[in-house]
This record gives sequence, structure tokens and C-alpha cells, in this order.
Amino acid sequence: MNIPEIDLPRVVIIGGGFAGLKLAKTLNTNLCQVVLFDSNNYHTFQPLLYQVATAGLEPDSIAYPLRKILKNKKNFHFRMARVLEVDSEKNRIDSTVGQLEYDHLVIATGAQTNYFGMENIERNSISMKTLIESVNLRSKILSNFEKALNTSDLKEQERLMNFVIVGGGATGVELAGALAELKMHILPNDFPDLDIRRMQIHLLEASDKILGAMSEKATTKSEKFLRKLGVNVWVNTMVKDYDGKTVQTSKKDFPTYSLIWAAGVSASLVKGLKTKALKLNRLPVDEFNKVLEYDNIYAIGDVASTQTNEEPFGLPMLGSVAVQQGRCLGQNLNRILQKKSPEPFIYRNSGTMATVGRNLAVVDFPFLSTGGLFAWLIWCLVHLMLLVDFRSRIIVLINWIWSWIKFDKGIRLIISPNFSLKKSN
Amino acid sequence: MNIPEIDLPRVVIIGGGFAGLKLAKTLNTNLCQVVLFDSNNYHTFQPLLYQVATAGLEPDSIAYPLRKILKNKKNFHFRMARVLEVDSEKNRIDSTVGQLEYDHLVIATGAQTNYFGMENIERNSISMKTLIESVNLRSKILSNFEKALNTSDLKEQERLMNFVIVGGGATGVELAGALAELKMHILPNDFPDLDIRRMQIHLLEASDKILGAMSEKATTKSEKFLRKLGVNVWVNTMVKDYDGKTVQTSKKDFPTYSLIWAAGVSASLVKGLKTKALKLNRLPVDEFNKVLEYDNIYAIGDVASTQTNEEPFGLPMLGSVAVQQGRCLGQNLNRILQKKSPEPFIYRNSGTMATVGRNLAVVDFPFLSTGGLFAWLIWCLVHLMLLVDFRSRIIVLINWIWSWIKFDKGIRLIISPNFSLKKSN
Repeated sequence: MNIPEIDLPRVVIIGGGFAGLKLAKTLNTNLCQVVLFDSNNYHTFQPLLYQVATAGLEPDSIAYPLRKILKNKKNFHFRMARVLEVDSEKNRIDSTVGQLEYDHLVIATGAQTNYFGMENIERNSISMKTLIESVNLRSKILSNFEKALNTSDLKEQERLMNFVIVGGGATGVELAGALAELKMHILPNDFPDLDIRRMQIHLLEASDKILGAMSEKATTKSEKFLRKLGVNVWVNTMVKDYDGKTVQTSKKDFPTYSLIWAAGVSASLVKGLKTKALKLNRLPVDEFNKVLEYDNIYAIGDVASTQTNEEPFGLPMLGSVAVQQGRCLGQNLNRILQKKSPEPFIYRNSGTMATVGRNLAVVDFPFLSTGGLFAWLIWCLVHLMLLVDFRSRIIVLINWIWSWIKFDKGIRLIISPNFSLKKSN
Repeated sequence: MNIPEIDLPRVVIIGGGFAGLKLAKTLNTNLCQVVLFDSNNYHTFQPLLYQVATAGLEPDSIAYPLRKILKNKKNFHFRMARVLEVDSEKNRIDSTVGQLEYDHLVIATGAQTNYFGMENIERNSISMKTLIESVNLRSKILSNFEKALNTSDLKEQERLMNFVIVGGGATGVELAGALAELKMHILPNDFPDLDIRRMQIHLLEASDKILGAMSEKATTKSEKFLRKLGVNVWVNTMVKDYDGKTVQTSKKDFPTYSLIWAAGVSASLVKGLKTKALKLNRLPVDEFNKVLEYDNIYAIGDVASTQTNEEPFGLPMLGSVAVQQGRCLGQNLNRILQKKSPEPFIYRNSGTMATVGRNLAVVDFPFLSTGGLFAWLIWCLVHLMLLVDFRSRIIVLINWIWSWIKFDKGIRLIISPNFSLKKSN
């Protein structure tokens, strides 16, 4: 694949998400050659995918060309390709664009939607883990209402206008809240011929509370906020099956054409490693993020499971963990390449947060749990600062201010080829 | 299709482009019910499509949800559907969502790419008339360079890195200039492993000059600007065939995987009209934009051909003509609905312009022809003001300022499903 052979050790990184990107930025390329693989040519800021899916932001505001982010790094090479297999005996990976040898390999492949083996749900539901899925979801939501106009069958309209979101984590809560805002402020104006009050948003959670990973206060407040926005929250509700028309659960049946599956993820593994994966497919790593049984293979981010006394099942699959591990491993590899000793990874909990809607968010900091307008302002500020570049920050800020003043979400285009009329007719 | 039957005449508009949108805005819906059909749920600002194709603007900045633009109009209904046929005997249209009767029918279906019967070119070339095509073109351009990295075959690299644009009108000139800017400022940084100097941009024109519809001065200046940017301009060059690998022309062969066809358009007709179409499929209309042989069927925009003494072949297919005809017909229908006499359409030439690149544009006003920085500033200002809403204006302005200062085009994502690695593997 035409990667130059130079007189420096080669670090191969698989995945340009939060972990892989931070690692690539941190590595000192005077000491090594870095080759980054990703199947997309961009990094996705996943926390805001739900705003793309609900017409609040354009996809280009939350995705960044990886080449652009890393353009000033020498001895750095990006390849848009999927890594198919690792041959750890030969220190070599095989990819869709050929083979490459490595000195150090870092697996930062992240996580994918977990359907827990339920094939019907995998086939018929919608997921929101990638940029393309989010754009498709936006098209699906809007297309449903266009279709609802063309039928007088109330059962059919109900299926088109009902949305069932499974999974009461941050993704499910944020998406439910954003859909509720579409229902309140946008859809009644866009579709005066439809009785939008009949649109129902159901949020289903298998455990006994939503935002289970957050504080009791966050759970209670977010439930209150969701109720205020008209979302039906169903806890202790297990999904059993979905045929594309009706969701069967342990509580009742929900007729809908749109089941959005945000109930869980599992790590995306690369083939060829002999280390036995743990729960949710995650790779066990030591305190230096080195994969057990290997000397030159590391794992960071969602795919890695660092066990500590406080977190016997591994650290949570969060962007903040991924960024910290990427930075730590980068610094450690820089040390190792200079024959210095690496330092163990210590996770610093910087807090978790979720937004429910306009002026409504919940925030858990180590020193403070709060909810409401103040939490919402913190949420906005933190997410703005986390965006990769200045241009995106300005554009996201303008979109947010615009939406806030005008009660509007402007990006309501149906552009997915899957739902375009030209293709389907 | 659930359009309410009310006690007002019904005006059916086919197409939400410049003409149809302006008409819908102008019609007084106290006097009539308006039903607008478009196969997309958005209006596309076509003059800036080339900036989407060359990573300068996000698609959402230049497309607007039709429902949003027209949301405050009573007795207005939008249907995302294609009109299949007109039954002028029964005053009824048939569409992908059912039949509908009309009192007045307005055909504003615009134009589509014209391949002049060359099937190989239609199959193998790329067009840039729609938003989806522009996004696909962006993905194709960027994917080509990703692919070029993975081959050592110089012939293959040449085919990937060469771009042949056919058609020296505004679209071809603007696209060639934008590609040249990618070559100068973006691609060498993004692909340090490739020798971007070997990338060639060819602009082919069958007649003896580019921008033939503009003044002699505009032609000369734009050719000078394109040469300065490194574009190879080939006039008097007829394309004969293209097999997807080599463009055969009357002058020489061009090896390339990317032939962009901007050589011409023809009107998009609706089936069922008995009026014989003119050159380029356009419908002959009288001075009130009424289609010949009909009393209640009108045509506006690219699809209509108004013959005058100055323009024996019809007015040019320009956005400004479409907008003026939409406004005029709207006012005339408002008059007719009040039993007043309509007024004939008179085209007021507001000028034409084309941009070639950073600080380089040509402008023909009725009173002034100029080129260079001043023309470029006029071009920017006029296009900003023509954008439909304030949010888009700010976002486009920020993107332009950003690009201008940083010599950057930020929207370099490969998101088209057609070119995504996940689909193709």
C-alpha cells in the first residue's frame, strides 16, 4: 500500500475515533512512523449524532476529515480502509488495501450496536452509531410524515407517526427529547394536515431506571423532563421481538414502523487475536493498555477493558475514557520509544451529562449533580469546546442559537438515497 | 391524497425550483388553494451545487425544506411525489401518491442533463444537476485520491487523478476553477504521498469559446483566469465516446475515470400534453406563460420557451428568468382569480456572472462588463443575498470567510453510500 519504509519503528492504529485520533495526535512522529486506518475518511463526534438525526445539525458540522486534522504531522500516513485481520506471529495486518507490518499495533476500533442475538430486531430496527445511519434516520423520520399524509387509514398513520426508542441511556434519552421537540415546535407547522398530537414517542428501558449510569438525581430529573416533553417512559420493559410493524415487549405491544435501537453496544473486534475477549467482546488490557498475552499490541477506548477495584467490569464506554487512554498511550509509547518506562493509566472522572431538550439537561460532576437550565448551559458549552475545529464551533453555535430563538430545526432535508422517491419508484 | 376540497379554485404546481417556489410564494391563497408537488422535500439553490461538489459548502446550506419556506401560507399543501401524467381532458394529474384535479396547472419541472443521445456517456459520466449528485461527486473526487494511494501503476494513478469536464458554460467553468483550487491548496496537504502536480483538469467545449452566452470580455477574462489556475481549456473539442476509462474527442484521447458532464440540459417534460415541444423539449408558451393549445395550463422556468424578437429560440435557461416568470405568473393568476386581465411577461436582464476562483469572477451587467476581484465581490454578495434564509446566509458567509483566510475547504467527507467502503466490500 505504498507506505514508505523509513528507519523508525512503525505504529499502526486501527480506528480514528476519540481514542485513535487522540493517540495519533499525541505520538511524537520524530520517534516513529504512524499509520492510521479507518473505514471512513472522517472522525465522527458521536455525542451529537442524535442532533443530526433530528434535523438540528448538518452532518458536516460534527464530522472532520482525518487528513485535515492531522495534516501537519510528518511521518504520518492515513489509509481509508478496513483492517481485516491481525497476524501477530508475523507482526502484520491485512486490510482491504493490502498488508502492512507493524512494530506496535493499537486497536481502537470502538463499539458497534449490540442486538443481543435478536435477528429480527437487527433486520427491522434503525441504529444511530454512524454518521450515515444518523442521516438515514433523519430521512426516515421525515419521510414517515410525508407518507402519513397519503393514507386515511388511522392504524397506518399511527404506525408511521409512532416512534419507539429502546435503551434509556444517554443516546436514547437525548434522542427521545429531540423527537419530542420536533413534535412540539416543528411538525405541527410543517404538516398542518396531520394531527401531530397523535404522534407518540416511547422510550423503553429494560432496567428499573433511565440513565442508570448516572446519579439518582439525574435519573429522577431526566424522567421528569421527558414527561414534561410528552415522552412515554417505560422502565422494566423488555423488548421481545419486532417484525417491522409491531414491537412486542414484556409489557404491551407498540405498533410502529420505526424502532430505534439504542439498547447497547459491543466492542468491534479485529480477527486474528488469540486473547480471549471479555464481556461485550472487550479486550482485557493491563494498566498500560497492553492487550493480555501480547507485548506490542495495545487496545484503547470502548474496545479495551481495564479492570480496577472500583470498576470490576471495565471502565464505562465513554468518549472521555477513550480520549484519556489515547493520550496516555501516546505519551507511554513516546516514552517507550525513548527507552523510558511507561506510566500506568489512571482514569479521571470528568463527569457525565445528558441533555433532554431546550433548557433541560442533567449533569453529574464528581463534586456536583444538577439538572435544568444551568446544567443545559454547561452541556452546551462543554460540547462546543469538545468540537474539533473552530469553524465547526461557530457553525454549531449559530445553529443552536438559531434553533433556540426561532424554536426551529432547519436541516429537514430528506437526502438519503434509501428513502428518495427517485430510487424507490 | 387527502387534499381538502374547499370552495376555491385549485392551482397545482409541478416543481419547487426557482420558478415554482416564487410562484407559490406570490399566489394569494385567499383566492385559491395551492398544491405544490416536488420529488424532493427541499428547494435546491443550484448555482452553488459546484461548491458542494468541491467540498466548499455543506449540502444543507444550499437546500431548504419546502414546507419550512412556505409554512405560514394557508390553503397551501405540499406533496413529496412525482407527477406521472397530465390528463388535460379531465383537468387531472396522476402522481406517485394518487390523482388530483386542478383548475389551473403550472408546469415548472425545470431541466435535466442532456446527453444528446450518447448512451455510453450517460452511463459512465457524472452529472451535477441535483444535490445528491453533487454530494456523490464530492465523494467520488476524494475517493479517487484515496484509491490513487494504493496503486503504483502510474497509468492507473493518472486515470484517478485526471478530471475531464465537458461544457464550457458557467457550471463547467466554476467547477473547473474549484477543482483547480482543491489541487493548489488542499490536496497537496491531504495527500503528501501523492504527486498532486500530476493531477490534470481539462475543460472541454464544443464551440469556439467558453461562457458563450456572456460577453467577449467575460470569455477572454475567464479563460485567462482558468489558465492561471492551471486548467487546460480545450475549445472546438467534441466528445465522441467514453467507456469509463478514456474520453474520445475530436482532438485527442483523455484517460480518466471521472468525466463530468455539464454540456447541456433539456427540459423535463410531464407526460400527457398534446402541445408539441420545441428545441430541447421546451414547451412553447405565450406572453402570459400559457402553454399553446391550452387555457388553464402554464409553464414557467427552464421548461418554458417564450419567443421574442430578441430571443427567437426562447429566453436563456437561467434562474433569474425562472424567478421573474414565477413572480409574473403568480401576479397574473391573482389577477385572473379576481376577474382582472393578466399582464404580459417582460424579461428584465439583471446580468449574468460566473466565478472562476478565489478573487476571480466575471460579471456582465447590462451597463457594465468586468472581471477580477471587484466582480468576485459582486458575485459573492449577490449569491449570499439570493440564498433563501438568514441562517444559511450566515453559515455560507462563515464558510467562505474561513476558506478565504485559511485557503481551506472544510467539507471533505466521503459520505455517499455509493462510494463507502462498508457497502462496496
